[in-house]
Amino acid sequence: MHFGVDYYPEHWPEDRWAEDIRLMKQANFNIVRLAEFAWTKMEPVENEYHFEWLDKIISLFEESNIKVVLCTPTATPPKWLMDKYPDIYPIDEYGHVRGYGSRRHYCFNNETYKEYTKKIVKAMANHYKNNKTVVTWQLDNEFGCHNTVRCYCDDCEKAFQKYLENKYETIENLNEKLGMAFWSQTYYSFESVIIPRHTVCDYKEGKMLAHNPGLWLDYCRFASQSVDDYAALQIEVLRENGVTVPITHNFMAKFYDIDYNKHAKLYDFVSWDCYPNIVHGPFDDIMEVSFQHDMMRGYKNRKFWIMEMSSGPGGWNFMGRAPDPAQLRLWTYQAVAHGADGILYFRWRPCLFGTEQYWHGILDHDGIGRDRYKIIKQVGAEFKTLESIIDRTENVSEVCMIRSFDNVWSHDYQWHSQGFDYNQILSYMHIALSKLNINCDVTDFSHDLSKYKLVIIPAYNISTAENAEMLRKYVKNGGNALITFRSGNRDEYNKINGLTIPGYFRELAGIDVINYDALGKDMIKIKGVTGDSLAAVWADIIDQKDCEVLAAYDDCFYKNSPCITKNSVGKGTVYYMGCHTDVDTYQKVLKVITENIQTTKLVDKAVEGVETVYREYGDKKALFVLNYNDYNVSINILVPVKKTVHLEAFGVTVIY
Amino acid sequence: MHFGVDYYPEHWPEDRWAEDIRLMKQANFNIVRLAEFAWTKMEPVENEYHFEWLDKIISLFEESNIKVVLCTPTATPPKWLMDKYPDIYPIDEYGHVRGYGSRRHYCFNNETYKEYTKKIVKAMANHYKNNKTVVTWQLDNEFGCHNTVRCYCDDCEKAFQKYLENKYETIENLNEKLGMAFWSQTYYSFESVIIPRHTVCDYKEGKMLAHNPGLWLDYCRFASQSVDDYAALQIEVLRENGVTVPITHNFMAKFYDIDYNKHAKLYDFVSWDCYPNIVHGPFDDIMEVSFQHDMMRGYKNRKFWIMEMSSGPGGWNFMGRAPDPAQLRLWTYQAVAHGADGILYFRWRPCLFGTEQYWHGILDHDGIGRDRYKIIKQVGAEFKTLESIIDRTENVSEVCMIRSFDNVWSHDYQWHSQGFDYNQILSYMHIALSKLNINCDVTDFSHDLSKYKLVIIPAYNISTAENAEMLRKYVKNGGNALITFRSGNRDEYNKINGLTIPGYFRELAGIDVINYDALGKDMIKIKGVTGDSLAAVWADIIDQKDCEVLAAYDDCFYKNSPCITKNSVGKGTVYYMGCHTDVDTYQKVLKVITENIQTTKLVDKAVEGVETVYREYGDKKALFVLNYNDYNVSINILVPVKKTVHLEAFGVTVIY
Amino acid sequence: MHFGVDYYPEHWPEDRWAEDIRLMKQANFNIVRLAEFAWTKMEPVENEYHFEWLDKIISLFEESNIKVVLCTPTATPPKWLMDKYPDIYPIDEYGHVRGYGSRRHYCFNNETYKEYTKKIVKAMANHYKNNKTVVTWQLDNEFGCHNTVRCYCDDCEKAFQKYLENKYETIENLNEKLGMAFWSQTYYSFESVIIPRHTVCDYKEGKMLAHNPGLWLDYCRFASQSVDDYAALQIEVLRENGVTVPITHNFMAKFYDIDYNKHAKLYDFVSWDCYPNIVHGPFDDIMEVSFQHDMMRGYKNRKFWIMEMSSGPGGWNFMGRAPDPAQLRLWTYQAVAHGADGILYFRWRPCLFGTEQYWHGILDHDGIGRDRYKIIKQVGAEFKTLESIIDRTENVSEVCMIRSFDNVWSHDYQWHSQGFDYNQILSYMHIALSKLNINCDVTDFSHDLSKYKLVIIPAYNISTAENAEMLRKYVKNGGNALITFRSGNRDEYNKINGLTIPGYFRELAGIDVINYDALGKDMIKIKGVTGDSLAAVWADIIDQKDCEVLAAYDDCFYKNSPCITKNSVGKGTVYYMGCHTDVDTYQKVLKVITENIQTTKLVDKAVEGVETVYREYGDKKALFVLNYNDYNVSINILVPVKKTVHLEAFGVTVIY
Repeated sequence: MHFGVDYYPEHWPEDRWAEDIRLMKQANFNIVRLAEFAWTKMEPVENEYHFEWLDKIISLFEESNIKVVLCTPTATPPKWLMDKYPDIYPIDEYGHVRGYGSRRHYCFNNETYKEYTKKIVKAMANHYKNNKTVVTWQLDNEFGCHNTVRCYCDDCEKAFQKYLENKYETIENLNEKLGMAFWSQTYYSFESVIIPRHTVCDYKEGKMLAHNPGLWLDYCRFASQSVDDYAALQIEVLRENGVTVPITHNFMAKFYDIDYNKHAKLYDFVSWDCYPNIVHGPFDDIMEVSFQHDMMRGYKNRKFWIMEMSSGPGGWNFMGRAPDPAQLRLWTYQAVAHGADGILYFRWRPCLFGTEQYWHGILDHDGIGRDRYKIIKQVGAEFKTLESIIDRTENVSEVCMIRSFDNVWSHDYQWHSQGFDYNQILSYMHIALSKLNINCDVTDFSHDLSKYKLVIIPAYNISTAENAEMLRKYVKNGGNALITFRSGNRDEYNKINGLTIPGYFRELAGIDVINYDALGKDMIKIKGVTGDSLAAVWADIIDQKDCEVLAAYDDCFYKNSPCITKNSVGKGTVYYMGCHTDVDTYQKVLKVITENIQTTKLVDKAVEGVETVYREYGDKKALFVLNYNDYNVSINILVPVKKTVHLEAFGVTVIY
Repeated sequence: MHFGVDYYPEHWPEDRWAEDIRLMKQANFNIVRLAEFAWTKMEPVENEYHFEWLDKIISLFEESNIKVVLCTPTATPPKWLMDKYPDIYPIDEYGHVRGYGSRRHYCFNNETYKEYTKKIVKAMANHYKNNKTVVTWQLDNEFGCHNTVRCYCDDCEKAFQKYLENKYETIENLNEKLGMAFWSQTYYSFESVIIPRHTVCDYKEGKMLAHNPGLWLDYCRFASQSVDDYAALQIEVLRENGVTVPITHNFMAKFYDIDYNKHAKLYDFVSWDCYPNIVHGPFDDIMEVSFQHDMMRGYKNRKFWIMEMSSGPGGWNFMGRAPDPAQLRLWTYQAVAHGADGILYFRWRPCLFGTEQYWHGILDHDGIGRDRYKIIKQVGAEFKTLESIIDRTENVSEVCMIRSFDNVWSHDYQWHSQGFDYNQILSYMHIALSKLNINCDVTDFSHDLSKYKLVIIPAYNISTAENAEMLRKYVKNGGNALITFRSGNRDEYNKINGLTIPGYFRELAGIDVINYDALGKDMIKIKGVTGDSLAAVWADIIDQKDCEVLAAYDDCFYKNSPCITKNSVGKGTVYYMGCHTDVDTYQKVLKVITENIQTTKLVDKAVEGVETVYREYGDKKALFVLNYNDYNVSINILVPVKKTVHLEAFGVTVIY
Repeated sequence: MHFGVDYYPEHWPEDRWAEDIRLMKQANFNIVRLAEFAWTKMEPVENEYHFEWLDKIISLFEESNIKVVLCTPTATPPKWLMDKYPDIYPIDEYGHVRGYGSRRHYCFNNETYKEYTKKIVKAMANHYKNNKTVVTWQLDNEFGCHNTVRCYCDDCEKAFQKYLENKYETIENLNEKLGMAFWSQTYYSFESVIIPRHTVCDYKEGKMLAHNPGLWLDYCRFASQSVDDYAALQIEVLRENGVTVPITHNFMAKFYDIDYNKHAKLYDFVSWDCYPNIVHGPFDDIMEVSFQHDMMRGYKNRKFWIMEMSSGPGGWNFMGRAPDPAQLRLWTYQAVAHGADGILYFRWRPCLFGTEQYWHGILDHDGIGRDRYKIIKQVGAEFKTLESIIDRTENVSEVCMIRSFDNVWSHDYQWHSQGFDYNQILSYMHIALSKLNINCDVTDFSHDLSKYKLVIIPAYNISTAENAEMLRKYVKNGGNALITFRSGNRDEYNKINGLTIPGYFRELAGIDVINYDALGKDMIKIKGVTGDSLAAVWADIIDQKDCEVLAAYDDCFYKNSPCITKNSVGKGTVYYMGCHTDVDTYQKVLKVITENIQTTKLVDKAVEGVETVYREYGDKKALFVLNYNDYNVSINILVPVKKTVHLEAFGVTVIY
């Protein structure tokens, strides 16, 4: 297992390096990440490369047997480069240059920048390809951070036109497929097509809201693809120049501008930057982090790293709350439980200058390691005894949830109802499952569903007949599915398909949605298996035909219309949920469903604030039990053994 | 009576057209609106006109004896035109191009665009002038929507300079009349005058707040006049090329950038787009819609059409609440009661693509007509039996309210006190009257006031000695007037006239306002005919001289100063109201006044949520009784006959 | 004592002037301010000077023995100048021109504008240098108002590069001192350094947040220095052309873009524009105004003028609440009590046109003086009897507070914790002292501290070893200090100095801060001398070593850690306060401290809403007693004599 820290030797005098490494070694670290923002240190003047300092620090790490994740520094193009080629800067939707003075000031489609990228990456590859201490490469840093995936420069517009020409072949086909007849927006050539930017109908806040939804979706895909292409270019240079160790990139949570399902394919493994930042928040908030872990694991369906793990309060202009040191331990175990087999804390010591002076780390500004250092050192020691569990067992879930980035983008552009939030719908259900002590994978339709007892398909609007057919087979063979409102009715061009709702899934669900009510901020009464609860955001008004009704509205002109239904299909069952609700009510619904389909019980009775994560490999079985409460608890677990487990405040244990 | 729907045949395959027309006919429709966004369909390439598709659909309508409102398509200039002449785009106040991708992307003062407008309008006029099915033309669509009246391009600036030169003749005169001495803003030539745009003193939100108020007002007038000129140009082309049927344009509610009092003069009748969008709102909200109907009737003092009548939830990126189908019927009757003799629902079927995918219509996305279709069909049947009432009787009011666009713009730029809202003051009084079952016209000083028992002049600040003289004559002859705070003290140049408040109306009101207090969000106690109530937003501190005091302040350093007074002038009475308040308190004040002056009682006792609208023509008298409650009610009406009327939830009846 | 009004003869017909002067004389006025926006009136066309009108009004004032403050008119460059040299306009951070139509539309670093400034100032100086009625000059008007200190034009960028070159000499030195290694921001020449403007990492609100904090601080200093230079240029022209009378400028409250400590050195005395705008606010709000008076007195450590004293509701687009006339008297006495020996009300009569139509004055729009005129006239009469107190006695405080603009800017850019507000911390303590009837100077480290019993150093982060040494000497000799959280840890380059917190002040305070918690909007419990209170915004977690603990946290994982400590150093004491709190709790802490160190008691027992300000000169002692309540109070004062004082609502008395 990799356990270490993100380190910036370029920020500290060389005479401090040895002391830092001594303290790292003492903390049981075996890996550090280096150099992701150090371009000017490596190439202060064009073509003058200076790797001496980096060689030196790497050899010091080698002496201590600490390995290195080496990064390409392309997130921070040097000022000499920007002054020579100012068209590298990204452009905002009003035409303003997004200028110098921070980071990520480049456009992914700028050809000049691609050439300079190749040069620096090649120089690094050649210099370090045979260095045994460098065991992994990270590309750039947090692609797309600061809203940089979507650029509005001329290079991007031309590249977008090419992308569309490749896809649609004729402009007539584009006009037809995207419905450009609306508002006379018919284009007469691919060169006449624009990137959706500042128009007459923009709302005051400057969000682009009035463009053709299909063109917008294509632009989202194109922009995401541009990042894929840029990353692929770096990987190609690394491989062509002799780099053979794994390559990764640090993904971000709650970031939706890159199709990570696609993007993850580029890398040997996924890593991500995990900042729970929840110190006094409710249990639901930290379970949202578990959802993120499961998403990250799902992108490649394999273990992942945390490339930046929170080790203190973060902040640029102001900081967040200080974590109890015990929480740092708990969050680390949470990551590992959900599949992390690499943990690097961010950062070693907070910088004395620059934008991130207030992004704290393991040491304090004065270079002293206090309580945060002590607890992390302890975690390192514990992980040595848990190494076989961490490295060999895999997460096993009986439930999975289907999600796609086409739907992320479509829902983001047209959110149906005030308060509608695609991610919230998924996370509420995932949190509800966590509270029922049921583990849940997050995946897409490209993976094998047959191993699951339940497949959840929330708000899956952009969909195909193939999706429905795949699901039909799965259910006929005894699988179970839960489909929700806003599913089945958009095609790949973001057009509404004109089928009776829920469109492709109508036959499976066995219902017709004959009207609907975008509730916005209003809540309305429902009753049934949910008890007396409230629907929120959306209400499908349902003609249930032959289905069983699990819950119905108790409000409005559609009082008594069903809102949750159940339909038998072959050996399996299809549930349909016509409304959004709160986590508690989702929990009631999912309890009924999972009892029906008899998922495995991990605990005898759920305890508020306690999460259980199940792992196995062959006969080896392990249960991570995590207490997010700031008080002691006991819980009766049922697997891998029947046992009462006692946990301290923020305590954690692994039963195996 | 015209009863129909807005239809977009260009969005649907031709093989669907016949079915749509069959369903329309079945719904009792006799008119459709066509083509307002179909420029590229009619002229896909410059000078290549294609009217075949439009001819075809019109002839299909002709076969079914459904008439057509034909629109000029100038709201959506084609991309080929914009690429050829990019200076057509409007410019925002920062100099950004308001670009392609939605609609209304043209400047009203662009000469090139005027030429292309003439060409397409002429082509349509020539093609359809003799078509008997085309019974009305609509110009463009919603002039000024999306904040497009005011443009900041060089063409506009030059046209504005010309406008000012015509008005002021010499720059010295402009400097003097507008008070350019303030902050050294003296201009040295008309060419040196600017459109008020982004300055040093802008607040962060980007609203232009610091310019000279007189220049701002002239700019508002100029921009409104530019729209008049552009519309007049289209009308001229239509008439010169043989179009003889009526011409209209679809006005908007709560839109204030065009002086509709002036603009309405261009058309044969006014039509407007009515989206009550009030599903769960209080009675006051829907009475605000009645106020809008009365305003629209007032612009030409004659009946009007609803060119777009809400037929379902609307929305671009998200939708609003779904109406109870019974409400669609109620809202249609409300429009008719207030003077609509044409109703076209928007829209037939929601589009499967484009910005307005979520703007719903009579059918659903799947092309099926469900509850909304059924109720509209029923309304169509009912209107056949009411045709003579709808077509022949006229609204008759004993009260009227005076409003001007100069005051709209002046109050909008300098709103006196946080929370001051000119439209709210008028609408609160109008709503209060509705709740007292008193009908009220909305008009301006150009109309004959002698027929009214009461004339209300709220916040009429930009005013003239002639206004006061006209009012004096009216009151001397037995009329009654209610004047409010913020009246009588600005001249036509938006300068304060320096008279003791209320300026021109001071003699009529018989008071001096010796101080005032901009209450902002604070509320202060008042007492008198209002009972113990609260003043809001504004408090005039009054020296009442010989007037009767109806209410006084019970708060602040001016405790016991009068706030509402009554002054006898000749055979009539002038009331003055020095503060704003809530609808309930306005109702108390207006009850006292209307009882004093003995307006006709339509009902024995008001019932919450029930509106009554009186109409007559010769001996023919009719009372529309409308129940906005979602429960049954009874009400005792006094005209045209004494009778108890029972109404269902959202029910309506016409007694005649 | 100077007592008068701001007057704009250029806004009124000449035949009104005599009447205005008659009314001013009657109101006991002896001074007026003239001409600060009258450039086009003086030079309507380039090089054509017209001083006739100004000569005429000044001679009328001379006849009435009313003196004149004459202003340079550079706040409003004429349109003829802007059209000739459009590069004078300031540029915003996106590159937009901040255009014509309001005021302050010039860049302080534009060389052309400096030349035109010299020309107009020279012309005025030559014309008026010998005029005996002109007794003071005011430069421009409110430098920096409307966010105009910081400009983003090329001239500014070049000047900034020069400024940096002068300061750092080599680019390597700049890179090193500012920490440009962070994010590869190394500059390769001074010409490559930018003004911090729109970058990739800007938050949506457009605040620049991601730049290097050191470069940002240098830019703040440079921009402030640019204003100093521009003012110095005007002063030089005035002096070189024979002006010998005092020169001042009107400062602003709650304005932080100019280092007023430095800027004040340019002038003979400070004046400022005082708009309490508090009509119904709590006592704390009006005590904030007292804090501002004390700050203004502190800039030169001498008496000041109020160049614009509120005389009615103010507002551009809307107005604030109307003051009770008695409050106008009270606010005037408040200013005088804190050291004002010149009072000019803003304004004489509200303008009938222009942006400030709603900025009210002593007369009303109709030219009549009502209650506001009467009370001000009365104040003028009273001041004649108080002249020797006002002119001869000086404010005497036993407590002082240290504040610097480097810290204003550093805290403004990185505010540590949501809700952290440097000014609020100072003002809360100052208000707490006011409520304890303890007077407090506000100053910086350049002044002699030895005369104070207590020196308060709140959030003094940018600091030096010299500051600490100076304080050490002061305390060793028997002085007392109160240091707070966020002090002692930044160097002059806005870098964190890496010392254990509180850095330079650590030895004095006798503690180590071993962790901290940015509380944001959360509040946590504390106990001790504060009673059961709440800490807000920030919590230092303290290892108190040998100190006495005055209060400790009663919450969170650091429960029982000290939050307020006391350390003996030589003959004196150093208190450390590790958290922010509310005014009440600060009052409790400061009560304990001031009782310990035995400050003089001005009153027997504090009375809510009553302020006491002590003054003396030799044997002459005076106490201003001010009642901010809208009801009568009595208070037992102890100096200069033991006595019970009775005050009416908003009443004031001076005991001497």
